[in-house]
Parts: sequence; structure tokens; C-alpha cells
Amino acid sequence: MNAGDRVRVERSGTTYEGVLLPSTTADHLVVKLDGGYNVGVDRADADVEILESGVRDVERAQNVGGTSEVAFDDDLPTVSLISTGGTIASTVDYRTGAVTAQFDAEDVLRAVPDLAGRANYRGRVVANILSENMDPDIWTDLAEAVREEIEAGADGVVVMHGTDTMQYTASALSFMLETPVPIVFTGSQRSADRPSSDNVMNAVCAVEAAKADAAEVMVCMHASESDDACALHRGTRVRKNHTSRRDAFETVGAKPLGEVDYETGEVTFRREYTERGAVELEVAPDLEREVELLKFVPGMDPAVLDVYEGKAGLVVEGTGLGHVHTDLVERLGEMVEDGTTVVMTSQCLEGRVCDRVYDTGRDLLDAGVVEGEDTLPETMVVKLMWTLANVDDAAVRETVRTSLAGEIQDRSTPWL
Amino acid sequence: MNAGDRVRVERSGTTYEGVLLPSTTADHLVVKLDGGYNVGVDRADADVEILESGVRDVERAQNVGGTSEVAFDDDLPTVSLISTGGTIASTVDYRTGAVTAQFDAEDVLRAVPDLAGRANYRGRVVANILSENMDPDIWTDLAEAVREEIEAGADGVVVMHGTDTMQYTASALSFMLETPVPIVFTGSQRSADRPSSDNVMNAVCAVEAAKADAAEVMVCMHASESDDACALHRGTRVRKNHTSRRDAFETVGAKPLGEVDYETGEVTFRREYTERGAVELEVAPDLEREVELLKFVPGMDPAVLDVYEGKAGLVVEGTGLGHVHTDLVERLGEMVEDGTTVVMTSQCLEGRVCDRVYDTGRDLLDAGVVEGEDTLPETMVVKLMWTLANVDDAAVRETVRTSLAGEIQDRSTPWL
Repeated sequence: MNAGDRVRVERSGTTYEGVLLPSTTADHLVVKLDGGYNVGVDRADADVEILESGVRDVERAQNVGGTSEVAFDDDLPTVSLISTGGTIASTVDYRTGAVTAQFDAEDVLRAVPDLAGRANYRGRVVANILSENMDPDIWTDLAEAVREEIEAGADGVVVMHGTDTMQYTASALSFMLETPVPIVFTGSQRSADRPSSDNVMNAVCAVEAAKADAAEVMVCMHASESDDACALHRGTRVRKNHTSRRDAFETVGAKPLGEVDYETGEVTFRREYTERGAVELEVAPDLEREVELLKFVPGMDPAVLDVYEGKAGLVVEGTGLGHVHTDLVERLGEMVEDGTTVVMTSQCLEGRVCDRVYDTGRDLLDAGVVEGEDTLPETMVVKLMWTLANVDDAAVRETVRTSLAGEIQDRSTPWL
Repeated sequence: MNAGDRVRVERSGTTYEGVLLPSTTADHLVVKLDGGYNVGVDRADADVEILESGVRDVERAQNVGGTSEVAFDDDLPTVSLISTGGTIASTVDYRTGAVTAQFDAEDVLRAVPDLAGRANYRGRVVANILSENMDPDIWTDLAEAVREEIEAGADGVVVMHGTDTMQYTASALSFMLETPVPIVFTGSQRSADRPSSDNVMNAVCAVEAAKADAAEVMVCMHASESDDACALHRGTRVRKNHTSRRDAFETVGAKPLGEVDYETGEVTFRREYTERGAVELEVAPDLEREVELLKFVPGMDPAVLDVYEGKAGLVVEGTGLGHVHTDLVERLGEMVEDGTTVVMTSQCLEGRVCDRVYDTGRDLLDAGVVEGEDTLPETMVVKLMWTLANVDDAAVRETVRTSLAGEIQDRSTPWL
């Protein structure tokens, strides 16, 4: 039995017929069905009958510069898989009886045989962490890795990422990179050992998105609780809005950029997007680390502000149009005078900050606080880290209020 | 021209015919149309023709214990209007050219003549602040005021409140009060001087909700961008999810409790609710002030935790199922040992915290952090203030995880 043979595979009462592809592992068979769909079957579970030998010319290629052993097909685009950790490729940790992060890119292909035949893969590991441990230094490493992958010929990049902090990392890469190819984040809300796992569909759709005629930093996750499509979200406008649902990720304040049909692999864009190759590759990966987020709530002790003294930047998540208790305004003004860039966002999450309507807002503007427009608070933290490291001091305030990567939406809202 | 006269009023080309009601002000006429709907007309703009004198016995009553002069009708229930400040009854502040908070309950009736004829009103002012300046001490005052109003015979209470922090105050009263009548918060996203103002419809619907056969602490605000209905949200599950839209308020993770039809005034409940009179009035208005909220973001300096040392309570808004960077776990454990109650919630806002799935979560549980279930982070801050002041130390952790006022939803989510 060799790659290229036409086979009939039976597993658990279901029969698949197609051409055997070069499996990425010794454990799994990958069969290209006549409809073009690839199915992966655990060898241990499968009865295989060879129908015809060598019906298709497939070969097992050398490693392509990365750490993983992958199949190669001249007709297919090359997609780089970059692992950072997270549930999507995690394996069961028998030590503790629950799930822990542990994988490299080859593990991903082993876990998701359906990826075979869709692209040639380059694989590399940038980090292997739980996503709550994601750190701005890793965003910088990741941007450098993406640059290397694109320079090495990747037609698209898929970043495997834990879902907890995926939106922050996607924002970081949105600000750091001008990209001529798609950079697609994906992950999994349910581990692979659960029947409802979303890891296969999300990975498959992400690879299809990475092959698309686009050049955006996107998040690709389940569009609904159904297994029919993934939504594509702009990296700076996406938010994990549910702790556990598979369709937890949503574009805030707008429709998603588009979607990927799981069955056909077709990628459809519903909004304006940057086309593949429209811009040259450029990377500005530096970040200012001394940026914090403060979410205001009634009853907050004004002395809490003291801990942010001397920071380079502070993003405030205020109430409504962008307010905090009057008692905080003077102290914020002092921080601005001392060199801290203070940016106002809203805990409403949707809608634009506007500090020109009410007294408190005007006092905040007088104190030197910058309005974050309708940028999400979480995205604003990342943008401020990037802005303070990459823009002249004199241009920081203007940059905060200018959309760099779709983080500020058009003022199409008739109500403001 | 006297109250009780049948009149024809013409204003700006529109003609109204009905019975003149005792207007609450010298500036406005209030006419009960034959359909039962009340319309308020600025006297200065109106041409009035008396069709028949004294067709209905209406009288102008004495003040009813409060600060406002109000009309009285034996056939109508009594609704208490309590002002705390905010846009709904604010007037244009010509000093600054924008809107500032400045009103009492009589001003509200002057601003919303359509309230006349729907109920007898008691009016009082508990505060006159911008809602970003709302303070837990005012929540205590408000609970006492509501108690007094109910004891004085109010069949329902409407709290006029700025929208910025309405959800926090509604949560506070939800925990502080066992109520036999509806307590309905309402406000306005657009000031009365704007053509798109929502103040009239919200106030009218709130009064109708306060008359309903229910006994819930609710928020009553525009259900959509249309002017046809207000949604009724449970006080502990509601969130201002848009900075400026009139339908900014949403019930998180569920449908609203019900709605009020603006035209008919009909109140419909869509979910289980407490019926009027089902419980006796009880008030527990004390709060522990030393409670703070910390929203975790990647890159956060662990030293930020130092500022919360010695606090009675800290609500953490973690990522995903309830995580923070591993570097923070030990410090949080020390705080718990030192007597701070640390509660984990999620910045996803929707969905339940579950710290038993991943290593970091289990470490947090080992460190003594309490899971906030699916309580909203903002609601959890208020609940923790209340719990620490009203429950024995030994019962605090259990109380945090027990639904007191609908803040924790049923575990109907099949995915967790």
C-alpha cells in the first residue's frame, strides 16, 4: 500500500473510496475522496483494500525548511503553519487528567489529517504556551517568524493560537505587519478528545482562508454552532464574546469580513478587504511594554491610579461615551503632564467614545486624555504598545485617533 | 379653560381633540385623547378651542408627601418617581452650550407631559449627579428611599438614572431589596433637546412597567432603534453595550425579561418573573466599599496587583474560562491568605467561568480564588460589595456562587 494507490477504507461501518495521499504520520491514512474532500483515518481502526496501484503521482517530499515532515505538491500553494500553543493542537495530558498545551506543527497535521492535500505546509513553533501566558515579546517573535515564512515563499500563514488571548495577538500582528498574503489565526474552543471539538473544521477553514486572494490579518473560527462555515474576522475588531461556545468569536460593531464554507473550502468576502499582493511586506515588530489597562467601575478608589504612575501608556475603559468619576480627572491630567499617554475607550465595547458632549468628557479632554474613537479597549492596549514604540512622540495622539489596521470603523453611525 | 374641559388643540398643523388634564406645569397643556393616549403641548405653540366645559371631573391634588406638585386620580395606581440625575430629565445648560444634569421629579413631569394620566405620582430626588459620579453610598440612600416610597404606598417605583452606570445601580438594588412591587430603572441616551430623544418613550414605558403585575428590579430602555417598544431587562443581567444607540441596553446571555408596548402600554413577560406581592419588603442596604475590579490583559505588570493589597474584595476579569497569566497566581493566593476575597469572572462577558479545565484555572482554585459562575464582571463587583457587608465570612464563598437575584443563570448551556 503506497501513496497514490486507489483504496477502499472501512472504519466503524463507514466506507471511503479514493486515492491514498502521503500521510504525514505513521498513525494515520489520508484518503482523497473522489469529491476532492480529504478524510483522515486512524490506521489502527481501518480495514484497507487496495483497488488499483499507483493511479496518481504523489510523492513524499523533503522537509521544506521547517521542523516538520510534510507532503509536497507542485500544484498547491504553500501555507505556513505556526504554532504558539493552545487547545487546537493540544493532546491529552494523562498526568493531570485534563488538557494541557503540548504540540508542534507536525502534531497539528497528525491531529488534523484533513489538512493534507489542501496545501504544501511549512511548519514551525514560535511558542508552546497556554494563551493566558501570551506575552508581547512573543508577539514580536511571531511577527519576525511570519516575515521569515513569507520571505521563504509562504502563500499564506496560519497561526495556531489559544483562544483566550487570540484577539490581542491578532491585533498585534495587524499593527506590526504590512502583509501581501493572508495571516489567519485559528484555534479551538473544545479539545480534540471531545466529540464536539471544533479543531478540524477551524484548521481546514483557516488553511483555505490562507490560500484566499486577500491580504488581511484575520481570525477564522466557527461562524455558528453548526459545522458548516467559519467566519473571518478582522484582527483588530474581533472579540471572544463567550467563554465556551464554538462560535464565541464575533466582529464587534459590524458583520465579519467574510466566511469560509467548510464543505467546499470556498472563501467569500462580504466587506471591503485588501487583495493579495496589494502591499509590500513590511514589519515593525517593536512594542512599548509599559502600557496598562484600567477598567473603571463606580466606587473605585482613586488611589488605584497611583500604581500606573510613570507608565508610558494607560488605556482607560470608561463608562458610556468615555467617562470616569470626576475625582479621577485631575490625577489623570497629572499623569499626562508626567508623560503618560492616557487613552479613553468604553466598557460598552460597541460605539464611539465622544468626550465633547458632557462636562466630565470635556474635562478629560482638557486634562489631555486622548479619545480612542471606537477602538475596542483590548485592541487599544496593543495599539498603544505599538504606537509608543514606532511613532514620534509628537505624532502619538494623532496616531491613536487614526485607523491603521481597521481598528477604527467608519463614522457610518447616524446616531452620533 | 380648566382641567376637565373638552378641547381642540392645534400645534404645528396637527390637531388633537380630547379632555384637558390637570397639567403639572404652567408651560404645558396635557390632553387625554379619546383613544386614551395623553399628549403634552407647549402652551406657547398651541391654539386651544374649548369645545365643552367640565365634561370630566378632574382635580388638582395636594402634594403627596414628596417635593413635587402632582395630579391625583383615585382610579390610578401610585408610582414613585425617584431622580438620581442623568440625561432623561436634564435641561440644556446654556452656560457651557451642552448638556448638564439639572432636575427634580417635577422637572421630569414637565419634560414628559405624556406621563400624566397614567398614574398618580410621588416624586423625590435622591441625587443629582452625572452617572459616572454614581457612588455606592448613593445606592444605599436610594435603597432607603425606595423602601420609604413602598412603605408610603407606592405601587411601583421608577428610578430616573443616567445610562453610564445604570446597570451597576440596578444590580445594587437587586441585591439590597426584596420587593413586592416593580422597581424600574430608566434613562435616556439622547437629551430632550434632540429630535431623536428617547426620553419620553422610555419614561412612559417605565411607568407602565412600574404598574405591572410583577416585582422585579428591572431596566426599561428602547428595545430597538424603533419607537415601538421598550425592553425590560433583569437588573443583574443587563449591560450598556453601545456608547450611543438608543437600544444600547441588552440582557447578556438571554432574552430580556419582557417588553412594554409604547402605544398600548401593555407589559408582556417572556420569561419567568416574580409576581407582585410574592415577597415581603426587606432592605439590606449596607455595602463594603473596599472592593475593586481588575481586568487582566496580556503584558500586564504583575506589580499592578500590589495596589489591591489589603482590599476586602477583588473581582478579576480574566480571559476565556477565567484565566490570568501564571505569574499572577501566587500573588493572588497570598492576597486570599491575607483576607481578600478574590473572585474570577470573564472578559468574554457571556458564558460561565470554569477553572477546572486547564492547569492555570486549577492553580487559581488551589490559590483560593472563587469562581463567579456566569455573573457579569460589573455585577460581580456590586454583589461582592453587598456580600461582604451582609453575609458571615464563612458564607461569602458560597454566596458568591449562589444566585441571589438572577445574576447567575441556569446551567442550560449544553456546551459546558
